Amino acid sequence: MEHQKPDLRPFIQPQSIAILGASKHLGKPNGIPLFMLLEIGYPGKIYPVNPSYQEIAGYPCYPDIESIPGEVDLAVVGVSADQTLAVLEACARKGVKGAVVFTSGFAEAGEQGIDLQETIHRLAQESGMRIVGPNCVGIVHRQNKIWASFAPPLLYRKAYFNKNFHFISQSGFFGILTYQMAAREGLFFDQFYSVGNEADLGLPHFLDCLATDNHDRTDLIACYIEGIKDKDGELFKSAAEEALLRDKLIAVIKVGQTAAGTRAASSHTAALTGADRVYDAFFRQKRMIRAPGIEQLIPLLKICGAGKYPAGKRTAVISDSGGGAVMLADKCQLYGLDLVRFQEETERQLKEILPFFAATGNPVDLTAQVMTEPELLFKSISIVEKDPNIDNLVLNFGIGPANAPAVIQSLKELYLNSDKPMIAVCWPWAEEEAARPYIDEIRAFGLPVFHELDDCIWALGTLADRMEKVRKYKPPRRFAPGKEQRNAQFHLEAYWRSLGLPRPSEAREVSAQSGYNNMSEYAMKQILSCYGIPVTREFLVHSEAEAARAAETLGENLAVKAVSREVAHKTEIGGVLLHRKGREEVKQAYAELVKTIGALEHPPHLEGILVQEMLPPATELIVGVKRDPVFGPVVLCGLGGIFVEILEDISLRVAPLSRQDAEEMLQELKSYKVFQGARRQEPADLEAVIEILLSVSRLALEMDNLLELDLNPLMVYPRGQGAVVVDAWGRWQEDKNEET
Amino acid sequence: MEHQKPDLRPFIQPQSIAILGASKHLGKPNGIPLFMLLEIGYPGKIYPVNPSYQEIAGYPCYPDIESIPGEVDLAVVGVSADQTLAVLEACARKGVKGAVVFTSGFAEAGEQGIDLQETIHRLAQESGMRIVGPNCVGIVHRQNKIWASFAPPLLYRKAYFNKNFHFISQSGFFGILTYQMAAREGLFFDQFYSVGNEADLGLPHFLDCLATDNHDRTDLIACYIEGIKDKDGELFKSAAEEALLRDKLIAVIKVGQTAAGTRAASSHTAALTGADRVYDAFFRQKRMIRAPGIEQLIPLLKICGAGKYPAGKRTAVISDSGGGAVMLADKCQLYGLDLVRFQEETERQLKEILPFFAATGNPVDLTAQVMTEPELLFKSISIVEKDPNIDNLVLNFGIGPANAPAVIQSLKELYLNSDKPMIAVCWPWAEEEAARPYIDEIRAFGLPVFHELDDCIWALGTLADRMEKVRKYKPPRRFAPGKEQRNAQFHLEAYWRSLGLPRPSEAREVSAQSGYNNMSEYAMKQILSCYGIPVTREFLVHSEAEAARAAETLGENLAVKAVSREVAHKTEIGGVLLHRKGREEVKQAYAELVKTIGALEHPPHLEGILVQEMLPPATELIVGVKRDPVFGPVVLCGLGGIFVEILEDISLRVAPLSRQDAEEMLQELKSYKVFQGARRQEPADLEAVIEILLSVSRLALEMDNLLELDLNPLMVYPRGQGAVVVDAWGRWQEDKNEET
Repeated sequence: MEHQKPDLRPFIQPQSIAILGASKHLGKPNGIPLFMLLEIGYPGKIYPVNPSYQEIAGYPCYPDIESIPGEVDLAVVGVSADQTLAVLEACARKGVKGAVVFTSGFAEAGEQGIDLQETIHRLAQESGMRIVGPNCVGIVHRQNKIWASFAPPLLYRKAYFNKNFHFISQSGFFGILTYQMAAREGLFFDQFYSVGNEADLGLPHFLDCLATDNHDRTDLIACYIEGIKDKDGELFKSAAEEALLRDKLIAVIKVGQTAAGTRAASSHTAALTGADRVYDAFFRQKRMIRAPGIEQLIPLLKICGAGKYPAGKRTAVISDSGGGAVMLADKCQLYGLDLVRFQEETERQLKEILPFFAATGNPVDLTAQVMTEPELLFKSISIVEKDPNIDNLVLNFGIGPANAPAVIQSLKELYLNSDKPMIAVCWPWAEEEAARPYIDEIRAFGLPVFHELDDCIWALGTLADRMEKVRKYKPPRRFAPGKEQRNAQFHLEAYWRSLGLPRPSEAREVSAQSGYNNMSEYAMKQILSCYGIPVTREFLVHSEAEAARAAETLGENLAVKAVSREVAHKTEIGGVLLHRKGREEVKQAYAELVKTIGALEHPPHLEGILVQEMLPPATELIVGVKRDPVFGPVVLCGLGGIFVEILEDISLRVAPLSRQDAEEMLQELKSYKVFQGARRQEPADLEAVIEILLSVSRLALEMDNLLELDLNPLMVYPRGQGAVVVDAWGRWQEDKNEET
Repeated sequence: MEHQKPDLRPFIQPQSIAILGASKHLGKPNGIPLFMLLEIGYPGKIYPVNPSYQEIAGYPCYPDIESIPGEVDLAVVGVSADQTLAVLEACARKGVKGAVVFTSGFAEAGEQGIDLQETIHRLAQESGMRIVGPNCVGIVHRQNKIWASFAPPLLYRKAYFNKNFHFISQSGFFGILTYQMAAREGLFFDQFYSVGNEADLGLPHFLDCLATDNHDRTDLIACYIEGIKDKDGELFKSAAEEALLRDKLIAVIKVGQTAAGTRAASSHTAALTGADRVYDAFFRQKRMIRAPGIEQLIPLLKICGAGKYPAGKRTAVISDSGGGAVMLADKCQLYGLDLVRFQEETERQLKEILPFFAATGNPVDLTAQVMTEPELLFKSISIVEKDPNIDNLVLNFGIGPANAPAVIQSLKELYLNSDKPMIAVCWPWAEEEAARPYIDEIRAFGLPVFHELDDCIWALGTLADRMEKVRKYKPPRRFAPGKEQRNAQFHLEAYWRSLGLPRPSEAREVSAQSGYNNMSEYAMKQILSCYGIPVTREFLVHSEAEAARAAETLGENLAVKAVSREVAHKTEIGGVLLHRKGREEVKQAYAELVKTIGALEHPPHLEGILVQEMLPPATELIVGVKRDPVFGPVVLCGLGGIFVEILEDISLRVAPLSRQDAEEMLQELKSYKVFQGARRQEPADLEAVIEILLSVSRLALEMDNLLELDLNPLMVYPRGQGAVVVDAWGRWQEDKNEET
């Protein structure tokens, strides 16, 4: 984990750029950087480096980096794989501050490449020269006139608007493709980072840089992610948090959603990518928008680019056709937008202007009458736009020479004077070539125009949902507690001692050879208690007499269990006896268990026998923690039984959890209805569950040697009656226990 | 229900066409039909009709239909709504055989319009002149050179291929849009039917006509559906069945998937559209492909248009970029394609030609090396194409002047000589204008080219799945049994008598005022038994002595229930007593029930007391029947408890069910894993369930007065041990009981 943030200025504001392996052919990959630096007017010094040439494009060409007379901030490296290391070492010796390496043939190319890349990583660490790549397309920074990239020059065109959108990509191809597709829609990324194999700097470094950037330089950050490296997990988390706090939208495409995709991604980047569902939960948690693909990302960027953000989900559809109205109504509901009723006044006004056979509810169907009265379109829009029930307008109309004059100018004025987001699904009402200029005219005044009616509605719906969540719940700045902030009371080692229990390290010999330790139900529940998590009342006893006394205290219906951290599944070895009543039955049970365990072929070490109250039936929840290599502790929960086992109905959040996170993770469950009182049950005590999730999150962060925790079942009673952990199990990392 | 199929020849092969309300302005809606008939060279007689003109475009123009000298096969009606009826009546008097009515302002326009449309419907019924519309865009039949439509002339262009694809649309707008979008991709529909409000002829009539058409005239039928009218349900069902038997693919867009969409659709067509999930089940059952929207339909048509159908799901991805490979791998798995391993020989050959840092597994990543060696693309494709493990190839590459010469010609030869479906996700590798001709060249030799990588993979995956299912299971020609085919044994009335039970009609006074009858558990289960459906062993008794005898016969653990068709929820009135053991307890229970029921404020009529065996616990299934207004009896099943109640995990099929249908409806359940033996249970007796589903399907068809049936629970035991209905409930239509 790197705690010192790297200085990215050599990449963003270099005073001088050297191009190693520069080509005389300015259209070739190694020629493009020089060509584009000249084209866009980079104001700093440029040094082409190539022993074959004396000059390129009027610039003196140097045989090697050492021969350059002045200082070099940024080196662009396009030499072959076998020369790369030597060239980078020379750069480091020269005192170059940053290097962008295009070259392929490293970690993506098998073992030898992995070694070479590791050497490059060490070089960066030791020399302080930071490296982007290898195997990347490089960096483009339009505002600062930097083109340290072999991305095709065609990407450099005029933008329709001047929002500051940036793009960071773990795939060069995908980066260029996105750039290109966005450009086709008149959208241009100001900064573009292709990070390649991330030998040194990775996507999180640039994400962090942009997230903490001034607002006037960064509005939106788009990312293409194959997987975040373990070492960069913390930085990625904090960057996402920073962006949220500063209200910058991060839009993400994350591949590796399926097993096939994950396999392909890890062969591409040679990195383990972590569980996709953890990423997915984290994106939701930090209000990042995950687009399923480029087809959805572009519409999202277009809508955001218009600069009007949805104030809510209440949406009107106005269409010049019944079929369009129906399809858009379907898509709106599918993607979470509400087709609310208009105010009466709106409908009255629509009725006044539209033919009797038009539909004046929501969706509005103008009918083919607009073919003869094109002004009906604009008139209807201006009526609906004023309706206070409506947050967003989805317009659907054909455009061509026949109606454009009657529509465009008035629509422009209306649009520019309205705060409400609008999108137009627009079809050519003529030969495409004849309609195109009108569509471009509409686009030019800022109204996002689409030629499909699926992805654009996805984008509007997803954005509206995200904005609503952000408005509803502005997160406070949170800190994960550092070691020094921990309450001594919760210090594991001290606590163990106070319990008089053996340290897990002492139990090491008998635990799994894996180097991990389990903890017994009893010990685990003691720790849960410290965090205020309610557990069953229970006593660990060591004799029949103690068992009998426990029975008297605990009451009627009791469970008697063998306690040993060597046993994960107590029932399987006959270590659990249920429904024992009174002193005598519990004494008998004690004796029976001791005998059963003793008679096993390899009897485990018994820490004692647990006498435990048995609880009345309730909704059974499973709550757990798993440590993710990228995101750290992840809290999960789901309804017990078939919901988890058959339907895998589990929701996740990365610790630390906010109260809102805990609420949302419950709401996300398919089985949420069960909690709300479906099946003639009383509504469950969600408050109690939320408190427990928050406590588990705290425990998972503070106990940083905890690898896995399982509260199963957590019995949840009706509202106001609480929730209680009946059984618990944990797995701990051994080395960290040693440290404490 | 219409049993006589209408004669559609006046619409498809008219010898003469009259255009009522013809306009001199050939670019206006009422001018377009004449313009296009001339343009495409319609060989029959053309009669413009409009009192304002003497001639149009050199044709004599008639003041009214009566003045036309010869016979008229088809009238195209574009007069205003208030003149339409008079004009149609005149047409009918003249003996016109078919009319296409463009005019709006009928059922979609409220009450008055509904009445007017009903009058038109009656006119068609009485005169025998068949009508398409009103409120439609009309008919285009390219092969027969008919253009009875005001669809814009721009739709008429040259096709890239000559497959016979047709399109039937319940929305004019959507029809034109689809036509236009398909045309942009070089795909042209040969026949196009916009059916509008379906006052007389509807989508099912033309679907049936195309489904039973010769193979050389119809390859694929695309439909846009808002809802099938009740009266056309049977025809729609049989048309779908015919198409399946003749191996013609039907591709459907069905809107009204959501509540908002359904509301909008029914306001658009003024028809109740039936439950979307029944449509959805029926589409699957008949191997129709449902596209979520036009964005998915067009890629599907493009892939089908290439004429190579997937032999399986095993798919190779070959990409010139890692990012593209990963995204496509994700999408392939997401949409059900298998990214299988290549044969060893394939991988060996790929390794031989590709650079060491390329990925030679599936997906293949050619890397940026193709920028310098463009022939790598074709070479890799030709290696993978030969792999017998591979059914389909997904290619992903940039194209432009730099690589086109090295790629296109050899790719063309390979493609034309291969049976394997291929699709190309193709990006311009240059300014778009420079790359466009190359992309067109690829498209021109038949390889479907896409510029997105989501919908095209959906289309390939969905098609592969459909073809696999069709191949695996070729349905036999099936007949729903007619009245005469019914076995007398199952005749309800006779059966009732044999049971000595009162006829439901006698119970009418005491049953719901709704005009429907319930049937008691006992009677319902007797009927189930007739269909070979196992039910609990039970006796209906009328005295304590009979109860005691029943107890002796049935054994140990018994349920005792009050039987009355007036009571839907027995437990709620205390009408069920469980776990009674032996003569005495059952006698007591009898007395208790009689007393409890008698003491109710409004005691229902008791048919008797049911003594019933109680079964050991098992997997509980719910099986039912609901009568859909469009599709008739629909069989449903789902796992009892939360699966049905919370998750609505129910699957449906329209009766009659085939064995394959029954299997698939079980496999479709999210809870299918439970049957297969999840949660440490034994696998359930699926064979028994399938038999029961088939019997229920037969019952539902034969008992055509059954409105609703509920077998709940059906206890399913481990494999080989059968399944038994524990409780059953039915609702019957009163009038039909009268008839029998």
